[in-house]
Formats: sequence, C-alpha cells, structure tokens
Amino acid sequence: VAGRKNVFSALQLTRPQSNFFAPVEDVMLPSGSFNNKVAFITGGGTGLGRAMTTTLSQLGAQCVIASRKLDVLQQTAEEIGKETGNKVHAVQCDVRDPQAVSKCVDQIEALAGLPDVIINNAAGNFISPSERLSPNGWKTITDIVLNGTAFVTLELGKRLIQKQKGASFLAITTIYAESGSGFVVPSASAKAGVEALYKSLAAEWGRYGQRFNIIQPGPIKTKGAFSRLDPTGAFEKSMKHRIPTGRLGTKGEIANLAAYMSSDFATWMSGAVIRLDGGEYVFISGEFNNLISVTPDQWKAMEAMIRNTKGS
Amino acid sequence: VAGRKNVFSALQLTRPQSNFFAPVEDVMLPSGSFNNKVAFITGGGTGLGRAMTTTLSQLGAQCVIASRKLDVLQQTAEEIGKETGNKVHAVQCDVRDPQAVSKCVDQIEALAGLPDVIINNAAGNFISPSERLSPNGWKTITDIVLNGTAFVTLELGKRLIQKQKGASFLAITTIYAESGSGFVVPSASAKAGVEALYKSLAAEWGRYGQRFNIIQPGPIKTKGAFSRLDPTGAFEKSMKHRIPTGRLGTKGEIANLAAYMSSDFATWMSGAVIRLDGGEYVFISGEFNNLISVTPDQWKAMEAMIRNTKGS
Amino acid sequence: VAGRKNVFSALQLTRPQSNFFAPVEDVMLPSGSFNNKVAFITGGGTGLGRAMTTTLSQLGAQCVIASRKLDVLQQTAEEIGKETGNKVHAVQCDVRDPQAVSKCVDQIEALAGLPDVIINNAAGNFISPSERLSPNGWKTITDIVLNGTAFVTLELGKRLIQKQKGASFLAITTIYAESGSGFVVPSASAKAGVEALYKSLAAEWGRYGQRFNIIQPGPIKTKGAFSRLDPTGAFEKSMKHRIPTGRLGTKGEIANLAAYMSSDFATWMSGAVIRLDGGEYVFISGEFNNLISVTPDQWKAMEAMIRNTKGS
Amino acid sequence: VAGRKNVFSALQLTRPQSNFFAPVEDVMLPSGSFNNKVAFITGGGTGLGRAMTTTLSQLGAQCVIASRKLDVLQQTAEEIGKETGNKVHAVQCDVRDPQAVSKCVDQIEALAGLPDVIINNAAGNFISPSERLSPNGWKTITDIVLNGTAFVTLELGKRLIQKQKGASFLAITTIYAESGSGFVVPSASAKAGVEALYKSLAAEWGRYGQRFNIIQPGPIKTKGAFSRLDPTGAFEKSMKHRIPTGRLGTKGEIANLAAYMSSDFATWMSGAVIRLDGGEYVFISGEFNNLISVTPDQWKAMEAMIRNTKGS
Ligand SMILES: NC(=O)c1ccc[n+]([C@@H]2O[C@H](COP(=O)([O-])OP(=O)(O)OC[C@H]3O[C@@H](n4cnc5c(N)ncnc54)[C@H](OP(=O)(O)O)[C@@H]3O)[C@@H](O)[C@H]2O)c1
Ligand SMILES: NC(=O)c1ccc[n+]([C@@H]2O[C@H](COP(=O)([O-])OP(=O)(O)OC[C@H]3O[C@@H](n4cnc5c(N)ncnc54)[C@H](OP(=O)(O)O)[C@@H]3O)[C@@H](O)[C@H]2O)c1
Ligand SMILES: NC(=O)c1ccc[n+]([C@@H]2O[C@H](COP(=O)([O-])OP(=O)(O)OC[C@H]3O[C@@H](n4cnc5c(N)ncnc54)[C@H](OP(=O)(O)O)[C@@H]3O)[C@@H](O)[C@H]2O)c1
Ligand SMILES: NC(=O)c1ccc[n+]([C@@H]2O[C@H](COP(=O)([O-])OP(=O)(O)OC[C@H]3O[C@@H](n4cnc5c(N)ncnc54)[C@H](OP(=O)(O)O)[C@@H]3O)[C@@H](O)[C@H]2O)c1
Repeated sequence: VAGRKNVFSALQLTRPQSNFFAPVEDVMLPSGSFNNKVAFITGGGTGLGRAMTTTLSQLGAQCVIASRKLDVLQQTAEEIGKETGNKVHAVQCDVRDPQAVSKCVDQIEALAGLPDVIINNAAGNFISPSERLSPNGWKTITDIVLNGTAFVTLELGKRLIQKQKGASFLAITTIYAESGSGFVVPSASAKAGVEALYKSLAAEWGRYGQRFNIIQPGPIKTKGAFSRLDPTGAFEKSMKHRIPTGRLGTKGEIANLAAYMSSDFATWMSGAVIRLDGGEYVFISGEFNNLISVTPDQWKAMEAMIRNTKGS
Repeated sequence: VAGRKNVFSALQLTRPQSNFFAPVEDVMLPSGSFNNKVAFITGGGTGLGRAMTTTLSQLGAQCVIASRKLDVLQQTAEEIGKETGNKVHAVQCDVRDPQAVSKCVDQIEALAGLPDVIINNAAGNFISPSERLSPNGWKTITDIVLNGTAFVTLELGKRLIQKQKGASFLAITTIYAESGSGFVVPSASAKAGVEALYKSLAAEWGRYGQRFNIIQPGPIKTKGAFSRLDPTGAFEKSMKHRIPTGRLGTKGEIANLAAYMSSDFATWMSGAVIRLDGGEYVFISGEFNNLISVTPDQWKAMEAMIRNTKGS
Repeated sequence: VAGRKNVFSALQLTRPQSNFFAPVEDVMLPSGSFNNKVAFITGGGTGLGRAMTTTLSQLGAQCVIASRKLDVLQQTAEEIGKETGNKVHAVQCDVRDPQAVSKCVDQIEALAGLPDVIINNAAGNFISPSERLSPNGWKTITDIVLNGTAFVTLELGKRLIQKQKGASFLAITTIYAESGSGFVVPSASAKAGVEALYKSLAAEWGRYGQRFNIIQPGPIKTKGAFSRLDPTGAFEKSMKHRIPTGRLGTKGEIANLAAYMSSDFATWMSGAVIRLDGGEYVFISGEFNNLISVTPDQWKAMEAMIRNTKGS
Repeated sequence: VAGRKNVFSALQLTRPQSNFFAPVEDVMLPSGSFNNKVAFITGGGTGLGRAMTTTLSQLGAQCVIASRKLDVLQQTAEEIGKETGNKVHAVQCDVRDPQAVSKCVDQIEALAGLPDVIINNAAGNFISPSERLSPNGWKTITDIVLNGTAFVTLELGKRLIQKQKGASFLAITTIYAESGSGFVVPSASAKAGVEALYKSLAAEWGRYGQRFNIIQPGPIKTKGAFSRLDPTGAFEKSMKHRIPTGRLGTKGEIANLAAYMSSDFATWMSGAVIRLDGGEYVFISGEFNNLISVTPDQWKAMEAMIRNTKGS
C-alpha cells in the first residue's frame, strides 16, 4: 500500500484540467450562521461526518456526534471543540438498534435539546461480487444504511413534531443510489431506499416544519470509504479518466454544501437531491463519452468517413 | 364495503375517455411460449401474482408459487392447474427468513428444477402517517419487500450461477418507488431498494446469463392492495381525475406484460423499468396538469389576458 | 470498412453469455392484432422504421411510411406489401417543414384515413466534438428530431381530437436521452425534448383518447445509425465489454416491443419510457461495474485486504 | 388583477408551516467571492436574472446582461451598478439568432473579456392547451429556450476553449423539465433539451476547464413568469396545498444558490441538477401525498378498517 502511493503519485492521479478546478475548502457561510442551533451528525467521528461537524461547529452550532466507537467520537469531539470554541458532544449509538437510537435521542435532548439540524451520514459498505454475499452480509449493510437512517429519522421526527419544532434533515447517499451498481449491491439498494425515505418525508412532513434533502457525493478520499471500496488503489487510478474535473473531491467541499443545505439560506429547499461528484456520474452514464479518447487527427478521419456516408 | 360499491359505481369510477382504452386481457404471447420452462412466483396465490401465474401456466410453464399461507397457495395452484392443464406447485415460504427461502429453493429444485423465470411479487403495504410508524411497523414492510426480494434473488442467483443456467428475474415495484410518497413510506423505501438491486444485478450478472427487469404497476384492484391502501374507497374515486386513460388497470394487462418480459422475445431486455399505470405518474408529476379542469371558455379569457401582458 | 468486417468478426463482437440471450425475431402478437388499423411510421423506409412497419403490416395494419427519399420509401413499401399482402403507402415528407407535414397528413387521410398508430422514428445524428458544431450543425439534428416530432404529433393530434378518434403515439428516442452524452449533443438534447413532449401529452391528451409512449433502444446495427455513429467500427467492438447480455440488439426485437406498445394489449400504457438495450445503460451508469474485470483470484486478495481494515 | 391581490391575500396564500421556513435573502457567499470575475447573464434585466446579477455584482463580479429590450437592460444595469458599485454592462441580443449571439460575445469580449461565469436564464413560456399550439407557437418558445441556450453556450464555449480559459456555465430550467407537463409543452420539451445539453457538455468539456450545472426553480413570483403562467392567480392559490414548505420561493434564494454554484466553492460540481422548489415536485409526484388532507380522526377510523382486513 505504501508502495502504491509511490507508484500512483498525486500528479498521476489528477488530470491537467484539475488546475481549472482547484478546491476551496474555507468555510463558505457567514460566521455565526448556526449560532444557537443544535446539530446532530451520525458517523460524525470520522471522514465526511467529521468534516461536516467541523464546519457546522465553526459556524456556531452546538454539535452532537454519534456512532459505535465512543473513543473515536470523544477524540473528534474534543479536537473540534478546541478548534472552534463550540461544544461538541459524543454519544455512543449503533443506529441499527431502535432502542439504542431512542436512548441516544434522550441523551441529545438532555445535553443540548432537540436538534435543528440532523445529518444522517453513518454508513457501511464494501465491494464484493454479489454471488459471494450471504444474507448476513446483505443485512450488515442495509441495517446500518436503510434501517439505521429510518430509525434515527423517525425517532427524531416524532419528537420534533410533538414539540412543534422545525428541523432540517440531510442524508448522505451516493451517485449510484439511483443507477444502482454491481459489486456494492447492498449499499446501492439501501441508499436508494434512503433517498425514497427522504423524498417521501419531504412531501409528508413539511406541514410540521421539517425539510429533507440529500447529497450524493462522488469519490472523496476517506479512510473508511477507500479501504473497503478500493483496497488496491486501482479504482482511484482509473478515476482520472472518468471525472471531468480531473480530481477527487475534498471533505471541505462536501461540508460547505451540507452547511448551506442545513442553513436558513435553504429554507425553501426540500426534497432536493444534489450530486457533488466532479461530473463523474454524467460522464460514465453518457453512451458516447468514451470518444473523449479520440485524437484530433482521428476526428478528422472520422468526419470524412461520415461525410462520405450515403443514404440511411 | 358492500355499501361503498353501490355508491361509487363503475360508471362513476371511470371517465368517458376510458372507452378509447378498453382493456384486453386475452393471453398475448404465442401459445407454448413457456413450454419446458419453470417459473417461480412469490405471492403467486393472490392478486397480481395469481394472474401472472395463470398466464405463464397457460403459455406452457410449470409454475411454483410461494408465500406464507399454504392453504391459499394450494387452492390457487389447483384451480390454475385445472384451468390450464399444466402443473402448478405450492410451497410455503416466508421470504423474510433466509433459511426458509433456502429450504423453499430446495423444494423448487426437487419439484421442478431451478426456474427459468423468477417473479418477485410478494409484498406488504399499508397507509399510515409516518409519525405513527413504530420501528416494528417499518420493519414489517421493509423486511418483506426489500430483504425478502434480496434473499430470494441471491439464493436463486447463486444456484443458477453454479449450475451455469440462465434466467429472467422480474420484480414488481410501484410508480412511487422513484418519486417516493408520503403515507406509504416503508413501502416506497423498500421498493426503491428493490429497483436498485435489480438494476445493479442486471449490470453485474449478465455475464452469468441472468437478466433483471422491473414493472411499476399503477392502481389495479386487488383485495390485498386496496383493503390496506384504500379502506374507504375514497382514493379509487379520486383516481378518475388523475389517470389520463380514465380507468384502473387490470390484472390481465400486468400478466401479459410480465409474460413478455419473462419470455425469449425479451432476451435483450435487462435493467429495464416499465411503468404500466394508465399515465397516472406523468399526470400527477407534471406541474401544470391541473389545468385540465379549465374550460374552453376560461381558456379564451386566459389567452386574452396573456396576450395583453406587456414586458417581462 | 470491408476490411473491418473481417477483423471484428461476429464471433469477436459478442461475448460468451450471449448464448443465454439469443434473439427471437418471430412476430410476437396474435395474428390480425392490427386488422382494420392504420399505422403511420416516419422514417419507415429504412432501419428500425422499416422493421416496425414490416411487423405491423404482418399483423394486419395498413401502413403509411414517410421520409425524404421517395424512391427508398416506395421500394420498401412494395417489398413489405408483397411479403405481407397488406397495403403499404409511401409519402414523401421532410418532417422539419410544418407545411409539408400538413400536406403529408392530408395524403394519409386520403389514402387510408387518420391513423390509429403513429410511430415517430425519423431522426438524424452524427458524432462530433461539440466545439466543432456550427449553429447549422446543431439545427440540422434538432430540427428533424425535436421539431419534426412535434410537428407530426401536433398535426395528427389536432385532427384526431377534432374527429374524436383515439390513437397510440410512440416515439423512438435513445438511452442517452435522459443522461445526456458528449459527442452526440444535438441528438441528446433533441431526444430529451421528445421524451418531455410525449410525457407531457400523455398527461394532457388522455382525455381525447390518445396515449403516448417511448422506446429507448440501445445499439442496433442499422446502416443509418452505425455509419454516422461508428464509422470505424471501434465502438461496436468496445460494446461487448459494456452490454451485460453480450450482444447488440436486433431490429425484430424492437419491432415486437413497438407492436405490443401500439396494440390494444397496451391500452393502459401511457407515459411509459421503455429501455431496450441489453442492459447497457445500467452497466455504464453504475459506478463500480468496471470491477467486472477483476478475476476470482484478485477478489480473494482484495477481500483479505478489506477484512484487515481496521477502523473507519 | 388588482382585485385578485385583495382576494388572495398573503395570509391566504401561505400555510402555517411557512413560519418554519422564512426566506433569508441576504447575500450568502463571502464578500469579494467574485472579485476579478466577469459574469454573463442572459435575461439579466428582469426577474430571476436581475436578482442573480445583483448578487454576483454585490460579490464583486463585473456583469454583462443581455436580452432583447435594451432599455430595460440599461435601466437594470444602472440601478445595480449604483447599488453595488461594480460595473454592469447591457448588451442587446436576441438569443434565437446565432449571428446576434456571436456579435454579442464580441461585445462582451470588448467590454470585459470572456466571462468566468455564464448563466443561461433567458426564456419564454405561456400556458396553452397543446391542441391550440401552432408550429409558430411551438417554435417561439423552443427557439428561445433550447436553440438560444445552445447558441450562447456553443459560441462562448468555443472561444473559451480556444483561449484555454475555464468557466462555470449554469442553466435555469424548471421542475417539469424531467417529468414533462401538459399545457406548457414547448417549454417542457425545450427545458428538457437544455438539461441534456448541459449534462452532455459537463461530461465532454471538463477537459477544457468548463463545468455545467442546472437549477430547477419551483414557482417564484416574477412578472414575466406569472403573467403568462397564472394570469388569473388561481394557480398561485392552489399552490399552498402542494408546496410542503407552504410558500412560494423568492428571487434572493435562487440568487444565493446560483452564486454558490458559479463560485469557486463549487469547482467540483459539474453535471448537477439542483431542484429548489419548496418541495413541490416531490409532493405532487408521490402517489399517496393527497392523504395529507385526511384528519386525525379519519386516520383512526381507517387504521381500524385496515387492521380488520383479513387475507391478501
Ligand atoms: N467517501 C466517499 O467517497 C463517499 C462517496 C459517496 C458516499 N459516501 C457516504 O458518505 C458517508 C460518510 O462516509 P465516509 O467516507 O466519511 O466513511 P467513514 O469515515 O467510514 O464514515 C462512516 C461512519 O459511519 C459510522 N457508522 C458505521 N456503522 C455505524 C452504526 N451501526 N451505527 C452508527 N454509526 C455507524 C462510523 O463510525 P463507527 O465505526 O464508530 O460506528 C463512521 O464514522 C457515508 O454515508 C458514505 O456512504 C462517501
Ligand atoms: N394492486 C396494485 O394496485 C399494485 C400497485 C402497485 C404495485 N403492486 C405490487 O404488486 C404486487 C402484488 O400485489 P397485489 O396487489 O397482488 O396484492 P396481494 O394480493 O396482497 O399480494 C401480495 C402477496 O404477497 C404475499 N406475501 C406477503 N408477505 C409475504 C411474506 N412474508 N412471504 C411470502 N409472501 C408474502 C402474500 O401472500 P401470503 O399472505 O400468503 O404471504 C400475497 O400473495 C406487490 O408487490 C405490490 O406491491 C400492486
Ligand atoms: N440503430 C440504433 O442503434 C439506434 C439506437 C438508438 C436510437 N435509434 C433511433 O431509432 C430511429 C431509427 O434509426 P435507424 O437506426 O433505423 O436509422 P435510419 O435507418 O437512418 O433511420 C432514420 C430515418 O429517418 C428518416 N429521416 C431523416 N431525416 C428526415 C426528415 N428530415 N424527414 C423525414 N424523415 C427523415 C430517414 O429517411 P430519409 O433519409 O428518406 O429522410 C430514415 O429512414 C431513430 O430515431 C434513431 O435515433 C437507433
Ligand atoms: N419565475 C418562476 O417561477 C420560474 C420557475 C421556473 C423556472 N423559471 C425560469 O427562470 C428564468 C427566468 O424567468 P423569470 O421568472 O425571471 O421571467 P422573466 O423576467 O420573464 O425572464 C425572462 C427573461 O428572458 C429574456 N428573453 C426572452 N426572450 C429572449 C430572447 N429571444 N433573447 C434574449 N433574451 C430573451 C427576457 O428579456 P427580454 O424580454 O428583454 O428579451 C427576460 O429578461 C427562465 O428561464 C424561466 O424559465 C422561472
């Protein structure tokens, strides 16, 4: 793995056009945008969840993060709190267990009150040929991603409705939630379910002051995602040929989008599904995009052939 | 309920244009199209599953139907077998239980051999405001619809791959699988998951000779669906204003489409999602379709107002 | 070009799994399904249009075909008429010209009466980097595909409505109509427009007895399509790696689907969009489907790496 | 019309939940985000185009606005320039005419240089039953919306590619671009075409440093849109029953989203389609969302009926 890093250097992993698309990771929203707001982020101890928590905290939110590994959460909470000066709470919770979720929400209420911002970001995934999947392998992923998201959302939703408090819900899915994808089938199915859940509730619970939106991230280097989806690094390498902006995304870019969608600047946004993927999805899904590898000279030759075509 | 039938008579429940769209339920495919083929239909004892089984049986297939209620299955099997002269087997199976599914497939193999045609049709659903859903209510539906479909599909798929036998898989979802819908949220989420599962496997398992397709039916009167989705009959009544063809669908229409998609006429169809809904989905989803209630005189007045508009 | 045919022989252009998916091109519908019906097919002189005309004619329809090249149309009409024993009429019409379309419909009415079945199949397309497209190049394609389809559809629709006659409209688009695709941009844009047109009218004109549906074909070898989209044959070759069923489609398969959708077996189908593409679209659009090239041994190694992953 | 304003007062036109979703229209991005950038906005003299121009100008951009009515453009340019202190240029251009577009781009280059930000916002639309549309009525709209967008985009794209300059392209479409909609059919078709155009170019032109994104606004009160789409005000009234957030959108909300998407915070966003519509689309498209009008007591009765259902 160390070796791989040498072989596929950063230079090789991006394409020249990425110079046009340099990432900006500074916090985008006006400072204080989340003052007096409570944000709850599942899977907030690592990866994208940690990045979103950091941004919301910098913008004034009191954050609560939850997942299975309390030590990881606590360290993250402490580090972010130090950086931003705003309180970050860590709560242990396995989202697959509805009782644990209920207890977790009790704790949130005790620590900070019901949240104004909820981000369902916890997930599991790994690549595998589907014929090697056991029923347990299937359930491991779908229980976290679909049931976990539902349990968290229903539990918080019910309490918010009861207290007549509005909130912004955000779910992190993926660009293959709509299209499906082989080799990550439980994840694809569960994420598709999450999208339907959030679009459904956007329609149903607006009357209670809740809104529901979705981010579909393209590939962003986090330890959690890449260790299980690209153990050899081969996928990352091939990406440079299929992401029009020529690079992977960064955690800060997702965090800024998530903060916008969760903020009062987006109170009219509900039922939205936002793809942030450097253009990967439109590239792979367009039937003739492979012609990108045709050279200008080859184009000239082909144009001549086409012009000479007679009849239908 | 009997009373309701009197109040909303067939006449009231259809619109005049339905005369242009009279249903044809005769078997469409050439006789013998499924000779020497084995078809497995979950939920084949009732409703749409029963109708699809009947059509496949009439076309020569040896059918196996499975669900929880063995008595219902056995009666259906006997009745269809008598009607068509082809063997129909009944196997008890709760698709939520992977072990039961595995045993069921053992039985199929013993009775008829691995199937050439698989139709995942079993489902559960009921209407409910989402704030009234318990974790158990959520799981009741998603376990049948999403996990059940996955367990059946993975178990059969693995055995087919092992035996190097090709097959056609079909899943019955719904028109709100993509859009989501309030008040049927577990069903919407699980059906969306099923669609992603089938699109994913269409891509992944083509190399093994499997194809995977989806039908999204609009409203078709079956006892199972309507008793839990429209207990008062109010929904059925309002439909006449939102289905462009002016009527509900019939079981035979779904059965003919399902037979086509499962037949050798459709060997090049994989990853397809076919909506058969009388136009309901495009009607409800188009923002200005409500203008259908504007009268010709009102149009004249409105056109004059528009023409008089000055500037942007 | 002749040389190319030698190099990429049929054997090389299909993958082994195509044995599971052998095409069946016999006419599928019951004989006489279109007796006493009139069908109008644009671009019916060649390729898919000719195949659909042949099938409808075999099923009893009186057909009218129209496009620019009268000689081609007349020869096709004669050949099909001889084969099926049913009358096929040829009418010259450039669909880009609304006056020509109106005259063409006058002729249809005079020859056979207003049609029961309308298939908008005429189109133009060629591959080109978009920076090489002139405004004229853009308009050449969009005028045929989008405006042409609209002019034909509006002209026929108005007359049918006036005469209170119902009809089935079908449009042939492509799998990249929704996704978009580089290098065929005018075609992608115009076909997307056609899909919106047909979904819109499915909602609006059901009350007049009209229904509107769409077929999105994947790659099917016709002279018209392949000479302008794959002049070197390289695309066809690469296809075998991206079509799960391992082969191109055939004209007869499209014709059977089109006949079904245009028939009375499908009176409840409106606003449907049916992809028939061997699974190509779901394959290319799923982010991880490239893992199909990973070997079993590599999977073993990767699974070990994934299992050894610690933490998120 | 004045009378209408009295009848449907603001109170009646919003629902109680809109209190949870109060619009925030302050500029969202950090001040100076568009310093040293040139932005070109078609239809920038009125409505949403004017609002987006104002926001970009406030953020430091030098703006060029173009449409047919030079006097309107000049007044807008002057007013915005005064407000923000940054130069706004007005250029007359009918986007339907490729030569006019080319001249317009000459002028942009002369005035400010090739733009960094391009917003294709110009459009036309009116409601009409499709059987009342003439070929000219069809072309009036599609020429502006689809051809106009293509001519502007191709002309600017070619020059940017030649100069090896990157840019962000944004198109304003509508929530019915994907679904289609009766009664606005030319607009639906043309906007669908625009979406395919932008998704296609996102894939194809990333290598040249261009990115392409789309906003689908829901209903926002502008004179241009509402005078031609809702001349009587009836539509606006009915909206309160179908927008989950209980209100129309505001120009400032669109402007903030457009500014974000056009800014360097979104360099990894390409091929994205962002719906900002208060949840209207997910509400209307979900089959069971009408159950929102069922009262709690009715729910109790219906739940009892469902529970008493026996069998499938
Ligand atoms: N990175 C990408 O390229 C990418 C692309 C598309 C989508 N996404 C999505 O982005 C989100 C974050 O992913 P990431 O890349 O940041 O990976 P990550 O660091 O592995 O994040 C996953 C988080 O989920 C938590 N989690 C897992 N199982 C849980 C359970 N049963 N209960 C509670 N929490 C649980 C994990 O914490 P514990 O282990 O402590 O429980 C972890 O913090 C995921 O939804 C992922 O699907 C990522
Ligand atoms: N009718 C419509 O309007 C409509 C519209 C859209 C979609 N659909 C779909 O069409 C399919 C058939 O529905 P339908 O209307 O025909 O209703 P139905 O008669 O109630 O069919 C459902 C079937 O699923 C079986 N089933 C339920 N739970 C099961 C389990 N745990 N294990 C195994 N089988 C189980 C039932 O049999 P047991 O009770 O014996 O288990 C029953 O035969 C469903 O997928 C439904 O979602 C129907
Ligand atoms: N073959 C494929 O792989 C494929 C894949 C996806 C979609 N499709 C679609 O399938 C349809 C048929 O294509 P095909 O492959 O059969 O190619 P084709 O043989 O070239 O068919 C195109 C037809 O359109 C007619 N046409 C062109 N311009 C016209 C005009 N201005 N007015 C009237 N008619 C006109 C042509 O006849 P004249 O030259 O006589 O006018 C020709 O008969 C097209 O809509 C195409 O987009 C094909
Ligand atoms: N407001 C809404 O509710 C809503 C909802 C969905 C989408 N949209 C979209 O938002 C955009 C702006 O609409 P709006 O509501 O702000 O309406 P608007 O004020 O009428 O804006 C339309 C603009 O397009 C310009 N235009 C029209 N024809 C043109 C041509 N041939 N060449 C150049 N410019 C032309 C007009 O200026 P001239 O008359 O000077 O040419 C006008 O400034 C449109 O794309 C619209 O489809 C609006």
